[in-house]
Amino acid sequence: MDKPAPADHPIHELIRRRWSPRAFADRPVAPELLRSLFEAARWAASSYNEQPWRYIVAPREDQQTYGKLLDCLVPGNQRWARHAPVLALSVARLRFTHNDRPNRHAWHDVGAASALLALEATARGLAIHQMAGFEAERARQAFGIPQEFDPVAAIALGYPGDPQALPEDLRERELAPRQRRPLAETVFGGRWGEPLALLHLD
Amino acid sequence: MDKPAPADHPIHELIRRRWSPRAFADRPVAPELLRSLFEAARWAASSYNEQPWRYIVAPREDQQTYGKLLDCLVPGNQRWARHAPVLALSVARLRFTHNDRPNRHAWHDVGAASALLALEATARGLAIHQMAGFEAERARQAFGIPQEFDPVAAIALGYPGDPQALPEDLRERELAPRQRRPLAETVFGGRWGEPLALLHLD
Repeated sequence: MDKPAPADHPIHELIRRRWSPRAFADRPVAPELLRSLFEAARWAASSYNEQPWRYIVAPREDQQTYGKLLDCLVPGNQRWARHAPVLALSVARLRFTHNDRPNRHAWHDVGAASALLALEATARGLAIHQMAGFEAERARQAFGIPQEFDPVAAIALGYPGDPQALPEDLRERELAPRQRRPLAETVFGGRWGEPLALLHLD
Repeated sequence: MDKPAPADHPIHELIRRRWSPRAFADRPVAPELLRSLFEAARWAASSYNEQPWRYIVAPREDQQTYGKLLDCLVPGNQRWARHAPVLALSVARLRFTHNDRPNRHAWHDVGAASALLALEATARGLAIHQMAGFEAERARQAFGIPQEFDPVAAIALGYPGDPQALPEDLRERELAPRQRRPLAETVFGGRWGEPLALLHLD
């Protein structure tokens, strides 16, 4: 299924087509594709080029790791994510390597890296769905994530599947229209809350 | 100037070509292009579809806002960013609108939105350079940013310019090769710090 964004202004096809499905096809993801997805994440911008992102990746073939990661998800996400051929977890290093001071942008830059991962997936007919709903401390224990790192987001990855295969409540959400706040409530000029006049957004 | 990433594995052209220049051409950015850039950011994924991102945007034509934003940058960034035709500031809403609870992924999702902004810019021959080096509290005062929001990153935006126009120290950094940590130190399998075997990354 495709679910292109109903954009108000022209945007690149790759950005328009990215979305977060819950239905995944029963089809494995070739290792060379996975390499390209994480290579895309690798080239994100980051504060001081710290590259605070790390990823734990569990293809279904690695049953033990896949099972451990699935167990970290909240039940509501396990319902659908257990059909994804690959699960992953993004992780942030919280301090700069070069001086051990706190990196204010650690999570921000992990968000950027995962956004590129999502777009590379889109370019290859794949999709990811990131989840806030997982137990971070359980993940830390399960994978021995050191204290200077934070588990950030769980990720389901694979080829989009048939929404009809989902339970009814999830199918409804899968087929619901995509929505975003208007740009006029997001892009301000000199005064907070007032749309940038030059853009004629209101 | 182009500066494509020397990627180890194939990645989409848009991701490969995105980079963060310091030299900007003396050429304004048309309002319809700015609209498309922020429209791209608008369609980022976010936790509970909160869309925690906001942007303050200052095209040079709006001299007062541009000057206020430039004043928030650290001197080392003012040196080059003052030539960009547009300055901006990303801002994160720290709590969920629907229940006022802390949004653990606020900064993460702003990072994702700004990554899409950067790619849409790349697609249109533009570029952005995000900066951690600015005074957040000064920005809060200057623009009346409410306490429930955090100023996140300053942004210089425009058409890439001639590196030869930069002072020598900045020109060297502009022309230096792009570098990233190897994927084997970023993508782990079941054991923290060990590259995912399936990917043959080591």
